[in-house]
Amino acid sequence: MIAEGSERATLLVSCPDRRGIVAALAQVLYGHGANIFDSVQHTDPLAAQFFQRLHFDLTDLQTDRATLERAISEVAERFGMRYELRFQRQARRVALFVSRYDHCLYDLLLRHRSGELCCELPLIISNHPELEPVARQFGVEFKVVPVSTDAKSAAETAELELLAERGIELVVLARYMQILSADFIGKFPGKIINIHHSFLPAFVGGKPYHQAYQRGVKLIGATAHYVSAVLDEGPIIEQDVVRCSHRDAIEDLVRKGRDLEKVVLARAVRLHLEERLLIFGNKTVVFE
Amino acid sequence: MIAEGSERATLLVSCPDRRGIVAALAQVLYGHGANIFDSVQHTDPLAAQFFQRLHFDLTDLQTDRATLERAISEVAERFGMRYELRFQRQARRVALFVSRYDHCLYDLLLRHRSGELCCELPLIISNHPELEPVARQFGVEFKVVPVSTDAKSAAETAELELLAERGIELVVLARYMQILSADFIGKFPGKIINIHHSFLPAFVGGKPYHQAYQRGVKLIGATAHYVSAVLDEGPIIEQDVVRCSHRDAIEDLVRKGRDLEKVVLARAVRLHLEERLLIFGNKTVVFE
Amino acid sequence: MIAEGSERATLLVSCPDRRGIVAALAQVLYGHGANIFDSVQHTDPLAAQFFQRLHFDLTDLQTDRATLERAISEVAERFGMRYELRFQRQARRVALFVSRYDHCLYDLLLRHRSGELCCELPLIISNHPELEPVARQFGVEFKVVPVSTDAKSAAETAELELLAERGIELVVLARYMQILSADFIGKFPGKIINIHHSFLPAFVGGKPYHQAYQRGVKLIGATAHYVSAVLDEGPIIEQDVVRCSHRDAIEDLVRKGRDLEKVVLARAVRLHLEERLLIFGNKTVVFE
Amino acid sequence: MIAEGSERATLLVSCPDRRGIVAALAQVLYGHGANIFDSVQHTDPLAAQFFQRLHFDLTDLQTDRATLERAISEVAERFGMRYELRFQRQARRVALFVSRYDHCLYDLLLRHRSGELCCELPLIISNHPELEPVARQFGVEFKVVPVSTDAKSAAETAELELLAERGIELVVLARYMQILSADFIGKFPGKIINIHHSFLPAFVGGKPYHQAYQRGVKLIGATAHYVSAVLDEGPIIEQDVVRCSHRDAIEDLVRKGRDLEKVVLARAVRLHLEERLLIFGNKTVVFE
Repeated sequence: MIAEGSERATLLVSCPDRRGIVAALAQVLYGHGANIFDSVQHTDPLAAQFFQRLHFDLTDLQTDRATLERAISEVAERFGMRYELRFQRQARRVALFVSRYDHCLYDLLLRHRSGELCCELPLIISNHPELEPVARQFGVEFKVVPVSTDAKSAAETAELELLAERGIELVVLARYMQILSADFIGKFPGKIINIHHSFLPAFVGGKPYHQAYQRGVKLIGATAHYVSAVLDEGPIIEQDVVRCSHRDAIEDLVRKGRDLEKVVLARAVRLHLEERLLIFGNKTVVFE
Repeated sequence: MIAEGSERATLLVSCPDRRGIVAALAQVLYGHGANIFDSVQHTDPLAAQFFQRLHFDLTDLQTDRATLERAISEVAERFGMRYELRFQRQARRVALFVSRYDHCLYDLLLRHRSGELCCELPLIISNHPELEPVARQFGVEFKVVPVSTDAKSAAETAELELLAERGIELVVLARYMQILSADFIGKFPGKIINIHHSFLPAFVGGKPYHQAYQRGVKLIGATAHYVSAVLDEGPIIEQDVVRCSHRDAIEDLVRKGRDLEKVVLARAVRLHLEERLLIFGNKTVVFE
Repeated sequence: MIAEGSERATLLVSCPDRRGIVAALAQVLYGHGANIFDSVQHTDPLAAQFFQRLHFDLTDLQTDRATLERAISEVAERFGMRYELRFQRQARRVALFVSRYDHCLYDLLLRHRSGELCCELPLIISNHPELEPVARQFGVEFKVVPVSTDAKSAAETAELELLAERGIELVVLARYMQILSADFIGKFPGKIINIHHSFLPAFVGGKPYHQAYQRGVKLIGATAHYVSAVLDEGPIIEQDVVRCSHRDAIEDLVRKGRDLEKVVLARAVRLHLEERLLIFGNKTVVFE
Repeated sequence: MIAEGSERATLLVSCPDRRGIVAALAQVLYGHGANIFDSVQHTDPLAAQFFQRLHFDLTDLQTDRATLERAISEVAERFGMRYELRFQRQARRVALFVSRYDHCLYDLLLRHRSGELCCELPLIISNHPELEPVARQFGVEFKVVPVSTDAKSAAETAELELLAERGIELVVLARYMQILSADFIGKFPGKIINIHHSFLPAFVGGKPYHQAYQRGVKLIGATAHYVSAVLDEGPIIEQDVVRCSHRDAIEDLVRKGRDLEKVVLARAVRLHLEERLLIFGNKTVVFE
């Protein structure tokens, strides 16, 4: 799990709160020669749960990474921590799922190419062939896995095989218009990000812009969330809104919403890739 | 209905769309010497419904107001219009309903005193006595009408009498924590504005900040709407949101929400007083 | 100037305010069988200047377009109006100027392809060759016109020839890093839109993100404006901001700013194409 | 400096960056039995400067506060730290300076009364008598110190005496329309917060709403900043904006701006009172 030669690393931890956690983590990093650049901590007072993100430099590491990781895992065991340690060079491998809308796809591909998203992007899966030329422009493999109502399970098996073969660690549903099964979701817990085109929990389910139009709201929104077994009810990562009015027809809401969807999804993916997200219950802790 | 001597007037109209409406209204105003300062029109293409707001100057009126109004009412009849003509000097008489929260009350009273809200504010009704000193500071009559579960109807009767005696045309529920009966609402159709402390339709009903906290949203909101017979489902006038995070406890959401509630309610009241709102079905047309 | 067969048209007018303008315009449209869908008017009280946008349907036009236009031009003469009448089918021809940044270019090309921008986009001019492949992907002609300090005038001559040959009516500077001469600008008065990466008038001139970083602002912005002879001082069309903090290095400001620049420039171009912009003095009237 | 009996404390530190600071601070708190609830750290990579805010619980303190503070001061000396340690019960004493505008004054007084601002508010100083009744309503001492051009220095001497006598630690200029001398400012370094009614650095100096109107901006803003010797150029704490348009006359900008000024100033004061602000050079680090 440790790649040699990288210069920075991030440690994300959560555990039941008790005294001494901050000191213990700071001590273990200091003791190995790691220099903490950025750290942020949060204690949920109701749940008595501790969360911390530590971002540190390894240039002057006095031991090797394996030794550092072993020391961290000992602290983690002592405090009953869940933790994730990631060295900067271990770029995550991400797959995009799309259907026919291209705006989020283009947006993520362009951000990736400009260096905004620190990940590898080796695979796009779609239930339709239309966006293949976009993938080709960016040199990304594009696999069509059609999804029919009566053969959904077979489609998911094919998708899971592709994800496994390509070593995918994060799945981004970039306006993918199929509902994943609980089984599929269970194989990527906290590793599937979806963009929903409303400010959840308003307008759950299908055609949220039509629902928003009917209700006459003065703001429309978009919500990026982790996918959980209950549709549109997973932990929310990021949300934003834009003003609308009686002059906006449904197609105007759709157009305005596209800009929101792109930005909100990209922010969520970036937060995940920079190890800034922790899931606790059905909520997220976001260390911006 | 016409006060002599005022200089400006506003005409709000709606009717089924057909050719010639704009020309007919412009012609009647021009013909009487009124100078249109500001006009805005909207046609709902799905409903084929026409809406217009005309704001005009009467300085050089060549007839009198009664004649002008008669001419307008003739045009209205011809096109099947609902219309509202209001001369600037006819300040509306507004009553505020409050319970124990004082932030919206103070906000509206201060805005009124600074001249932001063109209305008279002769009456505050509350189901609790606590805010009486605030009313006294601003020289506004304060009436306590307690509401008990088993005598709700009697309370509403008392409230309606007060509203009638004081000549109230608009009721503003400034965090009033009682639900009005359909009967009461029916007596003030499109004349009761409420502030709800969520971005409706999310978190309908009671304790929306608690609901928002539970759901882990990243935005909280406030919604000003006309009160209709179905709770929290009346036509939305104005909404706004503010960012929140995992660090916000429920009391932080409440605190942040207060700033939203004040501003959103004040904007809605102002829009109503400036004749910028038309209700159509369960939506509003807002001529900002 | 009139293309036969289109169904809708837009009329933009401005003139010194006086009584009867609204009635005269409504009458001429009504008299020819045009049905006004959407109209909005504004009178600047200090300058006593009148502005109006009328959007109308021609399906039941009882004369032909030439006759309608003649009638409008007679009204215009009577009131001393400047006006612009545009039939929907007359899509404007737009040229994009770019340098090496691709984000605004991609954004406009994608919006154009998705139908958001009602125009033709036949030409991209750049002082560098790097973005040629992007133009090719979208099937748009790409011309490199290098600009050297000592041959700026020759470059502009070449650019103006290209614009003339391709029948260009609007020039969009999509992060074009050259300053146009007053001479060039004078040939496209009110027809060149630029995006500046600050909330003007803060941080005029070069490297605004560096300036913003130095000043320690908590918001960064972007401004779309018409280009006038004085750098960064032309009429502002649209602005927006995004929050930043001490954690943002200059490259973070650049990254956050890209999202703003794209959206703000696209909104401005769209407003221009939909005939929603009027220039008056050094300001714009925006009929959203 | 240490009040006995309080339960929480906050430590703010800044110093040149080097390894071991986080560990040393965590260790000293842990060693005395303090439990860190919330901590956030930032390292400015260009300036190689370290900043941290630690918020901790003292319920199980194993020594006394004097001992804890001595230990902290030893760490501070070792690392060349500037630090501020504040126990929750030591509510700061704040003075408000006002002139004739009452909106920020009312806003701060109401927030203070509702418990939003953890401070004592014993004194209001004004160069005009008009707002005395407001102060009286809230039971706050109100002192008029007239400022004439030729006796400015005498006025400031009187003000400084009042501040000293009342033990004031923070001065909030709540739309105070006088410019303080460098001498006065030097006596409260980083302890005077002002609200400026523009998004600085745009529209420095007087009448920013008039300047904004002239320039035709589409956003107006407000900026809360620490007062430094150079007018409107002190470290920015918080900024926000609101949309405006050609329809807004100067008085509309003033009205919209009031809502901004109130909220932005209140946020800045709250951040200061909660020990979330560090000044570095001419910028702030804001630990939200």
